[in-house]
Amino acid sequence: MLGIFDSGIGGLTVVKKVFEILPDYQILYFGDTARTPYGGRGEKIIKQYAAEGINFLINQGARIIIIACNTVSAVAFDDLKKKFSLPIFEVVKPVIEKAIKTTQNKKIGVVGTRATINSGVYEKLIKEIEPTIQIFSQACPLLVPLVEEGWFKKIETKMIVKKYLQPLRLQQIDTLILACTHYPFLQKIIQTKIGRQVKLVDPGEEVVLGVKNFLKQNPEIEKFLTKGDEHKFFVSDLTQRISQIAEGWLGRKIEIEEVEI
Amino acid sequence: MLGIFDSGIGGLTVVKKVFEILPDYQILYFGDTARTPYGGRGEKIIKQYAAEGINFLINQGARIIIIACNTVSAVAFDDLKKKFSLPIFEVVKPVIEKAIKTTQNKKIGVVGTRATINSGVYEKLIKEIEPTIQIFSQACPLLVPLVEEGWFKKIETKMIVKKYLQPLRLQQIDTLILACTHYPFLQKIIQTKIGRQVKLVDPGEEVVLGVKNFLKQNPEIEKFLTKGDEHKFFVSDLTQRISQIAEGWLGRKIEIEEVEI
Repeated sequence: MLGIFDSGIGGLTVVKKVFEILPDYQILYFGDTARTPYGGRGEKIIKQYAAEGINFLINQGARIIIIACNTVSAVAFDDLKKKFSLPIFEVVKPVIEKAIKTTQNKKIGVVGTRATINSGVYEKLIKEIEPTIQIFSQACPLLVPLVEEGWFKKIETKMIVKKYLQPLRLQQIDTLILACTHYPFLQKIIQTKIGRQVKLVDPGEEVVLGVKNFLKQNPEIEKFLTKGDEHKFFVSDLTQRISQIAEGWLGRKIEIEEVEI
Repeated sequence: MLGIFDSGIGGLTVVKKVFEILPDYQILYFGDTARTPYGGRGEKIIKQYAAEGINFLINQGARIIIIACNTVSAVAFDDLKKKFSLPIFEVVKPVIEKAIKTTQNKKIGVVGTRATINSGVYEKLIKEIEPTIQIFSQACPLLVPLVEEGWFKKIETKMIVKKYLQPLRLQQIDTLILACTHYPFLQKIIQTKIGRQVKLVDPGEEVVLGVKNFLKQNPEIEKFLTKGDEHKFFVSDLTQRISQIAEGWLGRKIEIEEVEI
């Protein structure tokens, strides 16, 4: 199965992309809702939680792992690659390559949680590939709770998005990385507030395109992925609200199971 | 020592009240920042986390426990009283008694996290004492992240508070319970938006007044509480930002230590 790991339910936006781009494969999802959000936590804890989540997915039959969480990708990926031998994909590198290909004026913006932005990983990795690019980063801690409230179109959300994006707009970036799983829900507002000329790039879309490519080139791994639509969804803490949000976001009824990890 | 348990750093508003009302006693604080917020979690998990935190405080020398967290008070207090033999105080009952004494028109409002409001505990306990009182509850999930951002006076905060309070205002409540540790930072905005005629009641203040009273009546317990200002602060995940917020809120320099529980 195709395992998707996230710190919470934000990774369901990556599930949506898998439904679109790789619709044949059975998905095994684990969201660590008992310990979400990872965004404000320290590095050691994030690495430990991520290893526990991935272990669970492997025990359930995952043959490939997608880390949907930007915080985990930014902070713990190297560590996890050393710990586990199966193919693991993360959301940071593919979107960086896409952003570098996309920018014309060499000014890239990054928006994400405080932990993702503070890690400086986007800046560091972009500079390694293309030192002449300027990166402008902005932590937007209120956007995750706004999305989880379902306030996708409210005036307050528009004002807060505008306030967060104003510094990036002044820098005249032409490419903006949405470095948090939740942000695709605010894509329209973000596009309006940052300006029509700016290209938005979505890590979820890029990682799934990368996995598609990998499976084409590695048929010996592809054949171990079960097909069908009996997807399995697990979380470490299940509430009625999580089921509601999940079904609303995915636009279909799903069964979610609570597990202790 | 006087132990204060919270799911995160919000309980520091209760510490502030202890500094004001019981300034002689040494405080032992534990905030479960690695697993905060408890607000959206299920009951079983909240009970387990709270028992672990209180156990830690007892092992560190606490002789009395104040549960600063409304979610834990609302969901887990009865369970914790059975598990532990030392005096445990919680923030729900004292504020309920105060609100019942305060209201003239018998219309009380309650604002809090989704979990606190969904638990229905305020409504249930008020009705048990005074069945003729009407209670109007409103979950305000965005206020905690707004406070943690330090957006105490921003226009967006005022608009969001206004939106949340509008239904309570229409009901013409005359008393409003601030059923979340973070809300005292928004006290002025809340007062303005709900109307000058409405009395706000703060669980932190009420619980500390209750403890003061208890210590006066129980000198055999009071004498075990160490005095002095070498307060100890522990969290389960320490970041630079937590130290910054804590010192900003308390208005003094403090040492915070990270512990695994």
